[in-house]
Amino acid sequence: MRTSLDCLPCIVRQAVDASRMVTDDEAALLKIMKLVFEKLAHADLSATPPEIVREVHAVIRRELHDADPFLPIKKKSTQRALDIAASAKLAIERAGNPFAAALAFSIAGNILDFGMRSDWNEAIISESFSKALERSIKFDDAVLARLHDEIATANMVLVLGDNAGEAVFDRLLIEHFPQRKNVFYAVKSSPVINDATREDAVAAGIDEVAAIVSNGADIPGTILGECSAEFLRIFHAADVVISKGQGNFETLNEDERKIWFLFQVKCPVIANHYEYSVGDWMVLEKEKK
Amino acid sequence: MRTSLDCLPCIVRQAVDASRMVTDDEAALLKIMKLVFEKLAHADLSATPPEIVREVHAVIRRELHDADPFLPIKKKSTQRALDIAASAKLAIERAGNPFAAALAFSIAGNILDFGMRSDWNEAIISESFSKALERSIKFDDAVLARLHDEIATANMVLVLGDNAGEAVFDRLLIEHFPQRKNVFYAVKSSPVINDATREDAVAAGIDEVAAIVSNGADIPGTILGECSAEFLRIFHAADVVISKGQGNFETLNEDERKIWFLFQVKCPVIANHYEYSVGDWMVLEKEKK
Repeated sequence: MRTSLDCLPCIVRQAVDASRMVTDDEAALLKIMKLVFEKLAHADLSATPPEIVREVHAVIRRELHDADPFLPIKKKSTQRALDIAASAKLAIERAGNPFAAALAFSIAGNILDFGMRSDWNEAIISESFSKALERSIKFDDAVLARLHDEIATANMVLVLGDNAGEAVFDRLLIEHFPQRKNVFYAVKSSPVINDATREDAVAAGIDEVAAIVSNGADIPGTILGECSAEFLRIFHAADVVISKGQGNFETLNEDERKIWFLFQVKCPVIANHYEYSVGDWMVLEKEKK
Repeated sequence: MRTSLDCLPCIVRQAVDASRMVTDDEAALLKIMKLVFEKLAHADLSATPPEIVREVHAVIRRELHDADPFLPIKKKSTQRALDIAASAKLAIERAGNPFAAALAFSIAGNILDFGMRSDWNEAIISESFSKALERSIKFDDAVLARLHDEIATANMVLVLGDNAGEAVFDRLLIEHFPQRKNVFYAVKSSPVINDATREDAVAAGIDEVAAIVSNGADIPGTILGECSAEFLRIFHAADVVISKGQGNFETLNEDERKIWFLFQVKCPVIANHYEYSVGDWMVLEKEKK
């Protein structure tokens, strides 16, 4: 999807929040914001939001001489997710439909997103995990059964990861796949916001259930034109692609191939555009075009 | 006060909203936003918010070839204010303290501000007027008595106007001054957002109770360095200066002279900075430095 004009103030706010997370030097912050505005003045504003956000965060990383400003929050996210992984596992195993329960945790984990807000809001995070623990989100059984059956008969499954921490729950979901032949888990090639890189995926134990593949880019989404040949080969060969998070949805929802999107709707622009509601837990079966 | 980094996303949002009010041509809107970003990249971000906002709105007016994009909403504001002026007048005359009641209406009128949000929100506007009609806002009697007494003994009083429409209630306030020797009402010299110009002040009937003076600038606030000699002479000679609205507060709250500020607190940045709350009705007696 194209960036909406309504995304622009939000992108500027994200830049302010992300920069403040790393420094409180007022002169440095003003300089960063001027460079962010300069970047936006020359950006292709009709690109997808993650492409524009990538440019903004590249400015921040460069100016702050910090290759990974979100590293502390990524570590905290992974730890927070690992802390509840045992209870999550128990809840999944006791559920009538363990696959559905695991899928709920994978979507619950999507709350560990520090793009739109950089602060750690424990209340919102706990609420998301509680919804999965209490199984209070109901999915369409028929849709879930189709995803389950597609995975059961697939020769290759690709999961497009989103955030660090969230990957812990993606691991649980992969563990509850009906079978695990050739499962790949895509991560960003270098840090952008709190998106999972290979290191974050390994910290979540993904390497024990899937082959981790870097997608070749540092966009908080998936722009195929910027991805590596290795990634593209898997993307096109996979029988099932499961895409996590709103950034991947924003960049792949108009793609040709069939994709399953799992995410929490986090912003009013997306919600209004597609007639979702902010806070919705999506299991979206986008058919092949 | 200096612009906060938190003002920047809000300024960008204002630019989007204001541009959309005038056009829905996507290409034109994208071009405007690029020029707004270009302007912000080179602006003095340590200036006051109204100075930066002035630059942004100048871009919008120029690109849309519209010298006064807020003209329709200014006319609607004046009409809405005139529609309740008779009931307001009655409420003021029946009040135990008509001066305090008139002052409440003048602050109620400050809700007619389309800088921070460009859409007409009738619920919020009606609520503000109802508060004045029902006298539900309590002011400090001693503070009001001081303002009343200063006006009573003044040889010259200057009211710094803010928005079109609001001026109708400022007229009611001036009518209830204890005396009206040399009362001046300052307006912007040319259109900026929905700030009152001479034409808007005349439509509100200000010319019947005060001498209207253009301040020489098109800033949605009062930057003395940009004001005309005529305005400055009155500003410095006046025994009492009553400043309406947040924009005038943001640009004059660090000035040397004594100023009375009347406004509604409309944004969290101001609220947090000064420990006010959004929605507070302020009668602020800033002493001479």
